[in-house]
Amino acid sequence: MHFVDLNCDLGESFGAYKIGQDEEILHYITSANIACGFHAGDPSTMRKTVRLALEKNVGIGAHPGLQDLAGFGRRNMDISPQEAYDLVVYQIGALYAFVKSEGGKLQHVKPHGALYNMAAKSAPLSEAIAEAVYNVDPELIIFGLAGGELVKAGKKIGLRTASEVFSDRTYQKDGSLTPRRELNALIKNHEIAVNQVIRMVKEGKVQSLQGTDVSIQADTICIHGDGENAIDFAKYISTALKKADIKVAKIGDFCKASNSSI
Amino acid sequence: MHFVDLNCDLGESFGAYKIGQDEEILHYITSANIACGFHAGDPSTMRKTVRLALEKNVGIGAHPGLQDLAGFGRRNMDISPQEAYDLVVYQIGALYAFVKSEGGKLQHVKPHGALYNMAAKSAPLSEAIAEAVYNVDPELIIFGLAGGELVKAGKKIGLRTASEVFSDRTYQKDGSLTPRRELNALIKNHEIAVNQVIRMVKEGKVQSLQGTDVSIQADTICIHGDGENAIDFAKYISTALKKADIKVAKIGDFCKASNSSI
Amino acid sequence: MHFVDLNCDLGESFGAYKIGQDEEILHYITSANIACGFHAGDPSTMRKTVRLALEKNVGIGAHPGLQDLAGFGRRNMDISPQEAYDLVVYQIGALYAFVKSEGGKLQHVKPHGALYNMAAKSAPLSEAIAEAVYNVDPELIIFGLAGGELVKAGKKIGLRTASEVFSDRTYQKDGSLTPRRELNALIKNHEIAVNQVIRMVKEGKVQSLQGTDVSIQADTICIHGDGENAIDFAKYISTALKKADIKVAKIGDFCKASNSSI
Amino acid sequence: MHFVDLNCDLGESFGAYKIGQDEEILHYITSANIACGFHAGDPSTMRKTVRLALEKNVGIGAHPGLQDLAGFGRRNMDISPQEAYDLVVYQIGALYAFVKSEGGKLQHVKPHGALYNMAAKSAPLSEAIAEAVYNVDPELIIFGLAGGELVKAGKKIGLRTASEVFSDRTYQKDGSLTPRRELNALIKNHEIAVNQVIRMVKEGKVQSLQGTDVSIQADTICIHGDGENAIDFAKYISTALKKADIKVAKIGDFCKASNSSI
Repeated sequence: MHFVDLNCDLGESFGAYKIGQDEEILHYITSANIACGFHAGDPSTMRKTVRLALEKNVGIGAHPGLQDLAGFGRRNMDISPQEAYDLVVYQIGALYAFVKSEGGKLQHVKPHGALYNMAAKSAPLSEAIAEAVYNVDPELIIFGLAGGELVKAGKKIGLRTASEVFSDRTYQKDGSLTPRRELNALIKNHEIAVNQVIRMVKEGKVQSLQGTDVSIQADTICIHGDGENAIDFAKYISTALKKADIKVAKIGDFCKASNSSI
Repeated sequence: MHFVDLNCDLGESFGAYKIGQDEEILHYITSANIACGFHAGDPSTMRKTVRLALEKNVGIGAHPGLQDLAGFGRRNMDISPQEAYDLVVYQIGALYAFVKSEGGKLQHVKPHGALYNMAAKSAPLSEAIAEAVYNVDPELIIFGLAGGELVKAGKKIGLRTASEVFSDRTYQKDGSLTPRRELNALIKNHEIAVNQVIRMVKEGKVQSLQGTDVSIQADTICIHGDGENAIDFAKYISTALKKADIKVAKIGDFCKASNSSI
Repeated sequence: MHFVDLNCDLGESFGAYKIGQDEEILHYITSANIACGFHAGDPSTMRKTVRLALEKNVGIGAHPGLQDLAGFGRRNMDISPQEAYDLVVYQIGALYAFVKSEGGKLQHVKPHGALYNMAAKSAPLSEAIAEAVYNVDPELIIFGLAGGELVKAGKKIGLRTASEVFSDRTYQKDGSLTPRRELNALIKNHEIAVNQVIRMVKEGKVQSLQGTDVSIQADTICIHGDGENAIDFAKYISTALKKADIKVAKIGDFCKASNSSI
Repeated sequence: MHFVDLNCDLGESFGAYKIGQDEEILHYITSANIACGFHAGDPSTMRKTVRLALEKNVGIGAHPGLQDLAGFGRRNMDISPQEAYDLVVYQIGALYAFVKSEGGKLQHVKPHGALYNMAAKSAPLSEAIAEAVYNVDPELIIFGLAGGELVKAGKKIGLRTASEVFSDRTYQKDGSLTPRRELNALIKNHEIAVNQVIRMVKEGKVQSLQGTDVSIQADTICIHGDGENAIDFAKYISTALKKADIKVAKIGDFCKASNSSI
């Protein structure tokens, strides 16, 4: 039996500002990455989003980001590993308190945006983030780019890890994502996108842009919550995975051991 | 045997900005209220301050404030009870994560500045704050102005409460503090200040400015950490209380039942 | 000949967060109040909004607010007159630089949200705000609630003032707005709303909820830019005013003397 | 006759947080770079600092920084040239309003911290910053690292430029500063430090760590306002420069043409 988790960024509204279609997308995903107030989100939005996720029985994750609300956490910043550690501990705690006060349990941590991207490439940053997660709660699952440094650092410290793949992005022969600025970085055809992830989940392989197959671990698939066709695509991929005999479930339900993704 | 706790606001530095003499004052206090990043403090400062407090075996409390770094959380803001609830949950969680990751245990919650003052006078605000504390962890002790609404709300929901008194402030015949803008609001003589709190702790009474005695519960005394003579006064009051056969201990050590301060 | 200005809050987006329908509403208004980064707006949004307003030949105003992005500047804060002065000078300057760099000229200043409401009732706050505007540029026009303290303070210091009225709000016999929490605070019927402002402009009178007529100065009408029917109503009121032989023009075109609204 | 300007970062306090010895250092410098609220500073601090600088007849400059108060603007951020343009326009405007309202005149603009360092190496970033300065006021003088991209971009667009040198830093044979992480990056001996700048000003040369002489333009010398010996060193260098027959004056007094530093 093959399993996969569908995760999406949620709770990105801020004060009077609304982003995303959280209620709708929650029908199709199994894990929610909830913004923690640094790059997006605010205390009230966090409470509401946690409540919505619990109602839908969706796995709840902290989605810590850089302290850059103006840039939505998407601009790289030269932070030290210690600073990364501190801001991750802080944000996990903030979300944890909402989850606990609403009677739920925190499932995972996925760094957001530039923090996610910088961590994927930097062992010291990833080790600091993994240590932060571990020190707050060693039962948490850490999400990182499949093949990236964060998954390695998570395994190293003894956390359960979830290797994340993208349905709408092409891959290079070294297993990395084709940079967005390049042609062919995005897969716009929904059928091709879904077939790519089905193969990743079932065979642990993806065909690179160069034509060669690359090994890849696919524990969780990143789903976008905004954009015109977000809800449609979420519905489509969820249905297609089930048709392909893949069990779509929240990561906490099938990622049992601390080295499940090896 | 009489007991009292000495609490002080700590961890109020922010980034490159330093405030307070945290290391020195920790020798003389028994509970630390650590800023949580809204009115003061930042993730790195929180981690360092938690570590210092644990080293000194001082009780650790979250010190949530209004989201007003520019005003140090001292300016009243018209926030709704729901907003107060949300910002208190958030900030307790953030500090909790540092306490847990450093191997400690969170002891109490004391709202900061304008939030503390507004809560003292507003039952709805106090009930929202008490509910936030209770929902995150019903074992936490809530600090509030002696005789104020927050202590009442804490008792009502079933939290342990600590009634806070001030050594350097005069009291009115209704038990309220003399507003700072009035003459005689402050007690500048250290001996008079200490004698006032000794009587509060031992007899449960304070002489008001109007000359009449007022009943007052004194579980914890507010100590200031900045200002020229802060360290000297902390040392002086700590010694004087012990000489008066009052056991100075962290609130968690003697505030056992959920209605200890009735 | 009767004149009136139609003003609307613009440039309230922030980073990735979008609010309002700025391009559409600009067709129907004559003056734009542009957020300056404290309660809403950011440098990039300010530049774009200034450019749009200049293209449409709409009068440009600074819309300074409280430093409360999380609350969109709508929550009262206990700021001192000096703090109000400082944050108004700052924000006018920030917008001024975009207006100057885009080749335009700043026309007016209208405080936002809670700052506007607090100023309407507080002479000291209004005097500080008026002084800030005057000291940055005595040629600026200051917008305030008709009959409120800000208009008085503006006249007193020698600024040109614009008394603002609301088409969709009912008035009390003392000339104040019916508080939003009360029944009958809002006028939902567009025809009644427009007739109210036409009478204000032409006769200088409004019928209060109590039935008596009240004198009111109507130099500029507040138009909302968000909400379902915002664009439709803006178009409707603009057309109706012209049909009633009222010249709809930016305030700077007809508010010539420093005491035009006496 | 040789001229040089002595500049120092001022107005870096924020709310309750104090940094620097602004009043003392103002006796020894000729130009003040005043923080504008993004990396440090706040509206009240800006007003007070502008007033102090005007009293001392010191040249006033805007000191725009990255929007990173937590990091004091010292952490590199991946901002686009357009974002740099916008945040520089905004911050110049904010300070300009205080200068105008206090009856003064803005002299220069010097980017702060990471923005300064990134600009020194990046032509596109520097061109965006220079354009921002030019568009707000083409009479402003732009400060940049001697030999860096910002000075080049300033000249290119037609601004007056000031090439900045450091007394307490060693130089490489290509004219760049020795990175701080390297041994011998700092010159701690005051006499050596001052002799280095005297030679820069008089001969336009500095001896690199490699032993060879490098050409360098020295219009303004960066003086530090905090640190134990800051005031002493400021006094020392000011006196020593005068003894060496160098006229210490604010840059606006001797940087007349738009290409003075060629």
